[in-house]
Amino acid sequence: MENFEFYNPVKILFGKGQIEKLNTLISKDKKILMIYGGGSIFKNGVYDSLLKALKGFQLTEFGGIEANPTHETSMEAVKLIKEKNIDFILAVGGGSVIDATKYIAASVYFDNKDPWQILSEGADIEKALPFGTILTLPATGTEMNANSVISKKSTQEKLAFSSEKIMPVFSILDPTTAGSLPKEQVANGVVDAFVHVVEQYLTYLASAPLQDRMAESILKTLIEIGPAVFRNPHDYDAMANLMWCATMALNGVISVGVPQDWATHSIGHELTAYHNIDHARTLAIVLPGLLLVLRKEKREKLLQYADRIWDIKLGSEDEKIEKAVGKTISFFESLGIQTRLSNYGVLTGTIDLIVKRFRDRKWLGLGDRQLVTPEKVKEILMHQL
Amino acid sequence: MENFEFYNPVKILFGKGQIEKLNTLISKDKKILMIYGGGSIFKNGVYDSLLKALKGFQLTEFGGIEANPTHETSMEAVKLIKEKNIDFILAVGGGSVIDATKYIAASVYFDNKDPWQILSEGADIEKALPFGTILTLPATGTEMNANSVISKKSTQEKLAFSSEKIMPVFSILDPTTAGSLPKEQVANGVVDAFVHVVEQYLTYLASAPLQDRMAESILKTLIEIGPAVFRNPHDYDAMANLMWCATMALNGVISVGVPQDWATHSIGHELTAYHNIDHARTLAIVLPGLLLVLRKEKREKLLQYADRIWDIKLGSEDEKIEKAVGKTISFFESLGIQTRLSNYGVLTGTIDLIVKRFRDRKWLGLGDRQLVTPEKVKEILMHQL
Repeated sequence: MENFEFYNPVKILFGKGQIEKLNTLISKDKKILMIYGGGSIFKNGVYDSLLKALKGFQLTEFGGIEANPTHETSMEAVKLIKEKNIDFILAVGGGSVIDATKYIAASVYFDNKDPWQILSEGADIEKALPFGTILTLPATGTEMNANSVISKKSTQEKLAFSSEKIMPVFSILDPTTAGSLPKEQVANGVVDAFVHVVEQYLTYLASAPLQDRMAESILKTLIEIGPAVFRNPHDYDAMANLMWCATMALNGVISVGVPQDWATHSIGHELTAYHNIDHARTLAIVLPGLLLVLRKEKREKLLQYADRIWDIKLGSEDEKIEKAVGKTISFFESLGIQTRLSNYGVLTGTIDLIVKRFRDRKWLGLGDRQLVTPEKVKEILMHQL
Repeated sequence: MENFEFYNPVKILFGKGQIEKLNTLISKDKKILMIYGGGSIFKNGVYDSLLKALKGFQLTEFGGIEANPTHETSMEAVKLIKEKNIDFILAVGGGSVIDATKYIAASVYFDNKDPWQILSEGADIEKALPFGTILTLPATGTEMNANSVISKKSTQEKLAFSSEKIMPVFSILDPTTAGSLPKEQVANGVVDAFVHVVEQYLTYLASAPLQDRMAESILKTLIEIGPAVFRNPHDYDAMANLMWCATMALNGVISVGVPQDWATHSIGHELTAYHNIDHARTLAIVLPGLLLVLRKEKREKLLQYADRIWDIKLGSEDEKIEKAVGKTISFFESLGIQTRLSNYGVLTGTIDLIVKRFRDRKWLGLGDRQLVTPEKVKEILMHQL
């Protein structure tokens, strides 16, 4: 097992009616900015519950965070925070709203520099405005971690950053708030959580059997409950299990002491940046190609995945790996998620752009052992045409 | 799934050489009291590493915490803390030292009342001295939770308490420090962690498939690595996996949203109180009897346990349950841990004393649905004679 540090002080309040506890989580003297997205919180009852719980608090609102939250919109929120002397943020929505809030919280104290440097140069975050979240869309896990992904419209970039300073003080996860989600978004959530686990699991053996089994626990549970929650997002238990799977998939528990990959994400982000494809769908496109192109390097773990997740016992090693990837694709497709670039109208021109971008960044290579060179990126994407 | 709150801000530093980071974890102006047990830290190299890492810090020492830490010894440490104006504690040792430290940390601010009330009456803890831990014996999980168990010599009582105020600021887990442990203590650690998981798992179905699988992940890993670490505690990977299993078994991750039992522990504590039997061994004695006596109430989960943990596919339901309990006993015995009261010289007189004690406390009943009445306690213990 590799050495590791683990620190996750986010307080989770999970279940029906937890929004009522909001007034015990924020002190009454705080000036709160509530940040939300496209307005679904007015339809799913969250806005009303929230106003009721925060009666008597000083509340300002900022709506309109995009599905792939942008630097540009975030800067408008930062301006408002400074004007109104806000000292606590409440992020209400899915991963986009929470990721934007993390960037906004850090940018408030980034006075003399361009906050985009946090993403483009990994500039240090010394301080951030405290914030809590109310999660209404299970998927990214951002409600219980230190990560955020932000896009820049002007340059068509999509980059990630991470800092202990931007972990939520609390996150409220009430599965009933996700019941009215469109099925496509529920499917995205299942696939997003699934691939998050894969990024921390399908690497190489590292004498960490507990972490392996915990990762497998999430994958198996997603396969078990995915169809039920896709069929009926109002199924409380199915949604509750999806919500908790998505959080556990990326709160650090399964990644301690083991290698991590994230090449699928890095490549997927480029597909969103160029074609605005939903994040989860970009992962569903990239993953099968990546696993097959790297089948030799990931062999031991791919065979474990075939055996333990898909119960594949027969065939040669290569056949087992191909079957396992095939089952993965079928699982994604059963949730209405296509895995070919052509399904999304992406042509070879985009592949060339993405490969050029990776070359220009002069990264050694993506993935757990930096094996995914720009040439491999091309091979992976061509495989998924 | 049941509603839940989860909050665990303990920072974990895991692996070889992590003790070196001590000076980055405690600020130099703190007056530190180092608390330890019987002196194993002078033999396993921990004391030397620690002095080196804390060179220049103001360090006072307090040794002699017992295997079942007592109120009486803890009060001596509280006296020393007040005399020396200590403002940070460093607990160095196993579960006993850390449990004692938690009680000491809370007792320091319990000025006008008898701290034993924290245990006997569940008196509220408003404040506690901050502390960190260096864990040298994987077993109890106390290094990453809010629990403590303290004994009172004068009354032969052993009771537990819990408070967010007594969670460690940090815990250092270096598996090499546990390499020189006697085999009996390693075996205790495996069984202790195993039964901790069982207490949170063998209850009743609660629509929480992820928590079930995560609990099963720990059980399976303990069964896999238990023999290796028992054979050779210096096997780094085996010890590292035991250490992380023991922490994960009781840091709250597997108990969220599901019922918990803890009847085995409550009964086991009495065996330690009367006969000073090692904690883990009391659990190994009580558990088989409890599972068989409650086989009807725990049927669904017992069948799942038989299937998923012990791969028992054949036989009637009762046969499967008996086989699973038999396999559990064999696992404990393979680690040199006996499961009969007679193995420890305990006679029916003690059973009568324990049953009377439970009657006198007027508890409704122990366990997940308070099904374990004093009569059931008697049945369980008689079964294990």
